[in-house]
Amino acid sequence: MVETATSPVSHRVRVALLDRIVRGEWAPGTPLPSEAALCREFDTSRGTVRRALAGLRADGVVVGGRGRPPVVGKVVPAQSLDTLRSFTEWARSEGRVPGQRTLVLDRRSADSATAGLLGLDEGATVVALVRVRTLENVPVMLERSTFVPEVGRHLFGFDTDTGSVFAELARQGVALTSARHTIDAVGANRLDSEALRVPMGAPLLRERRRSSDATGRAVEVADDRFRPEQFSFRIDNAAG
Amino acid sequence: MVETATSPVSHRVRVALLDRIVRGEWAPGTPLPSEAALCREFDTSRGTVRRALAGLRADGVVVGGRGRPPVVGKVVPAQSLDTLRSFTEWARSEGRVPGQRTLVLDRRSADSATAGLLGLDEGATVVALVRVRTLENVPVMLERSTFVPEVGRHLFGFDTDTGSVFAELARQGVALTSARHTIDAVGANRLDSEALRVPMGAPLLRERRRSSDATGRAVEVADDRFRPEQFSFRIDNAAG
Repeated sequence: MVETATSPVSHRVRVALLDRIVRGEWAPGTPLPSEAALCREFDTSRGTVRRALAGLRADGVVVGGRGRPPVVGKVVPAQSLDTLRSFTEWARSEGRVPGQRTLVLDRRSADSATAGLLGLDEGATVVALVRVRTLENVPVMLERSTFVPEVGRHLFGFDTDTGSVFAELARQGVALTSARHTIDAVGANRLDSEALRVPMGAPLLRERRRSSDATGRAVEVADDRFRPEQFSFRIDNAAG
Repeated sequence: MVETATSPVSHRVRVALLDRIVRGEWAPGTPLPSEAALCREFDTSRGTVRRALAGLRADGVVVGGRGRPPVVGKVVPAQSLDTLRSFTEWARSEGRVPGQRTLVLDRRSADSATAGLLGLDEGATVVALVRVRTLENVPVMLERSTFVPEVGRHLFGFDTDTGSVFAELARQGVALTSARHTIDAVGANRLDSEALRVPMGAPLLRERRRSSDATGRAVEVADDRFRPEQFSFRIDNAAG
């Protein structure tokens, strides 16, 4: 098992190297500088540099090692927002292997913000789902979804560890056909930190979403938090 | 199910209330006036007021349900990415007051990543512009733009502290008509931290952009970093 625990310094080194890779400054196949050179550049110890490199290797961003010089691997995948697609569907279209691990699936009382967004009374029962989403078994996103009860009830007859909730709901006759996305950034809280294996406060890309069914009724609100080293959104647009 | 259909009158009430919230007249957490008071103020029926409030609740601008007094939620302005618009144009459309302060305007040699994105040889001359962008004089975004020289040269005859570069370029006959945006999150570096008055490492929303002119030629690459408390992106989409 690769050591991926991150100190703040090794995280900083990791993010700095990743930035060069993501920007294309270091193209796929480029050999990384030697550990000694990285120690000098970042004025830090060999152990710290090794932890940073181990993290990049665990992310699949750096490949090679053990006797062979590490080289830059593939770059961060970007999800287009031109159409509404599930994480699973998007990942497969990119040739990636999506996965998920359920942390929470329960019925609970809606807080006022969630109730308002779903058009329910405060305290109404909703179905909450929290899952870690992975690509090739690497944690990429922590998903927190809340469904109106008529839709969420379908999840209790489904193994939420096995695949796409959107696809399962479609099989149950509930198609999520449109969504409004609000995208910003947030520092990792304790749960984010543990689930995504990043330090507390590390910058995460956040997508909040309200999804509606074919009648235009809001049926899901979600808060998805992504590791930016692992995921970005892409939008193409033109002057109106 | 809350009735959210809007009549012209309820829409007028909703917009009037939203205006007070967005302008900060009613801060987050402020209880709204009673329905009876709103009926008197807008000289309308309780049903109309309720429809206006339901619309604000659906937008997340007002929180709290029917049993508890509704209060103002947290409102962060969101820029739609449905069309390509400048920060200045977007801010004005929201009734906000955009501003800018230039930190850097110079000619420099393109690094390999920038040169690649602009279709130039490494080391070719480009024009770099770094500005702090503000809303009502509050720093909201740090903009780093790099232009191909034939376009960037127009900026030396323009006071970049006075307004929109996009609008100035359009006056010079260079219309930026399409763009690809890559959106993620990043921790504030030293310059971000100083310009945006946030701690080092604070999570920022990052938009990287490659803008093209009407012939499809890439003429600008940019890295814009936003304070997430001050700004978000909004995207509406539908299943393909």
